[in-house]
Amino acid sequence: MRGLWFDGEKVIYREDLPLPRKEGEALIRILYAGICNTDKEIVRGYHNFQGVLGHEFVGVVEDAPDNKLVGKRVVGEINVGCGKCKYCLSGLERHCPSRTVLGILKRDGVFAEYTTLPPANLHILPHEIEDVEGVFAEPLAAAFEIPEMVHIEPNEEVLIFGDGKLGLLISQVMKLYAKRVILVGKHKNKLELARRWEVEGIELSDAEGLGKFPYVIEATGTQSGFEMAVSHTLPRGHLILKSTTAKGATLNLSPVVVDEISVVGTRCGPFEPAINALKRGLVDVKEMITGIYPLERYREAFSKNDEKESIKIIFEI
Amino acid sequence: MRGLWFDGEKVIYREDLPLPRKEGEALIRILYAGICNTDKEIVRGYHNFQGVLGHEFVGVVEDAPDNKLVGKRVVGEINVGCGKCKYCLSGLERHCPSRTVLGILKRDGVFAEYTTLPPANLHILPHEIEDVEGVFAEPLAAAFEIPEMVHIEPNEEVLIFGDGKLGLLISQVMKLYAKRVILVGKHKNKLELARRWEVEGIELSDAEGLGKFPYVIEATGTQSGFEMAVSHTLPRGHLILKSTTAKGATLNLSPVVVDEISVVGTRCGPFEPAINALKRGLVDVKEMITGIYPLERYREAFSKNDEKESIKIIFEI
Repeated sequence: MRGLWFDGEKVIYREDLPLPRKEGEALIRILYAGICNTDKEIVRGYHNFQGVLGHEFVGVVEDAPDNKLVGKRVVGEINVGCGKCKYCLSGLERHCPSRTVLGILKRDGVFAEYTTLPPANLHILPHEIEDVEGVFAEPLAAAFEIPEMVHIEPNEEVLIFGDGKLGLLISQVMKLYAKRVILVGKHKNKLELARRWEVEGIELSDAEGLGKFPYVIEATGTQSGFEMAVSHTLPRGHLILKSTTAKGATLNLSPVVVDEISVVGTRCGPFEPAINALKRGLVDVKEMITGIYPLERYREAFSKNDEKESIKIIFEI
Repeated sequence: MRGLWFDGEKVIYREDLPLPRKEGEALIRILYAGICNTDKEIVRGYHNFQGVLGHEFVGVVEDAPDNKLVGKRVVGEINVGCGKCKYCLSGLERHCPSRTVLGILKRDGVFAEYTTLPPANLHILPHEIEDVEGVFAEPLAAAFEIPEMVHIEPNEEVLIFGDGKLGLLISQVMKLYAKRVILVGKHKNKLELARRWEVEGIELSDAEGLGKFPYVIEATGTQSGFEMAVSHTLPRGHLILKSTTAKGATLNLSPVVVDEISVVGTRCGPFEPAINALKRGLVDVKEMITGIYPLERYREAFSKNDEKESIKIIFEI
């Protein structure tokens, strides 16, 4: 089959990849797959991964242990746990110490014609959701991990740093939970898009006088982003980290202790609220699509993904 | 009056200090006052403080706007807020942005014959509590800030790093909340004391194989302490910071995000549960007293406080 293979150093477009088969797992034909910044990190060698890249997808089940899934359009949770540890048994496979992760850790991903996942990882996509919208189920689930981890009071205000793909999804989700959402970013077109969702888009250069907030979300993945986020968090406030990209980033703990700030790391999230939000039209993801590319034009796709104004780049497989 | 004055560079024992008087505040004659590590930090110049040192005390009210307080034996909350901001109005004077702090920030402390505090800061000490025990009300309140900020599940296990004054108080408080408490430290005598309270005292050199815990409390104030604490926190666990002493300490955020750890800073805490615990004998503080010194022997007291095996040093005023 066709697919994008990362050999540990470079991405290779291959047409000779074997069809993936795994005992007990569903075989999924990929329709669309999204580029995430984690894919960029992998290509930079941050995750020690080798194999087929990609983890955001919409596909159709072609074969499965349970026949009822065959022919269904699905999206999939990316962490596959051992099924036996206390995390797996409590529905938290994403923290299983021996997990594999689709396209990230010891498991081939979705920038290819086919992938496999256990049936328990799959969610059938309701007919109201278009194929390309379904690609956002995984990052949108990650945005829903914020209210999963932290109680957001509806009469409160949320400040988000970072107007990238994830910051834009988070700002839409937070708009469902809090009365006021402010998104600080560096990209005029992205802030303009956020304003259409009644999110207050503010340029970084104008952020200084914003004051402090009870909920601050860091989605830039930069050291300076972390520092700004801390300085804008109220005493007893919540600082939510929504980026794994800043590998060496550190946090000065003194203001955290003095102001009794809760710092919460959040990673993958629950798919069902994400699918519900897409189905009910509570979030707008189609406006976030910058371009759709066939797999063989991957160089162009990655290069477009790196452009400042780009938001979501999708492969049509 | 007599008192220990810090001039910004050194501590001076003075007998010529004026009697403190503040409109609307109670005048308190100090009986005993405790040395806290924060006092050491102040003497090192970390807080830009000048004035009478000390913030842990037991005293007797000699004058007050409300006569009912006069003659009463009291302990006192150390943060004095503006009384008007949203923190003060919700009982969180300790986060008031224009607060003063007894012996720490813009307010003379208690290593002296007299101090003043607003009546609202004072708590009458029940007769069951001895004078020297009352000195522990303030740091014990700081230990009770942990269950104030974080829900500790009773059937769970708590790992504490640091067997100093605060670590020992915290281990006793945690023993009231959780089924198993482990204290990791460097001092044989302090770990031995902890074992008398059914806390598992473990030497740092034996801590490596301890595994991960749902609640980890950092009370060493050292960079290496922070790093060990993170590495011993379970995914989705709580890392509680209970030390303001490590000014430059930083935290690597990557494991926090990947394992979705909640990092909570905690500082001063609620006095009432601390006083209740002392009154009911739920914690043992007298065993923690290493020595009691008159004020004029302050050099000896501070020097004793610095000794490895010392726990609590108290001034008898």
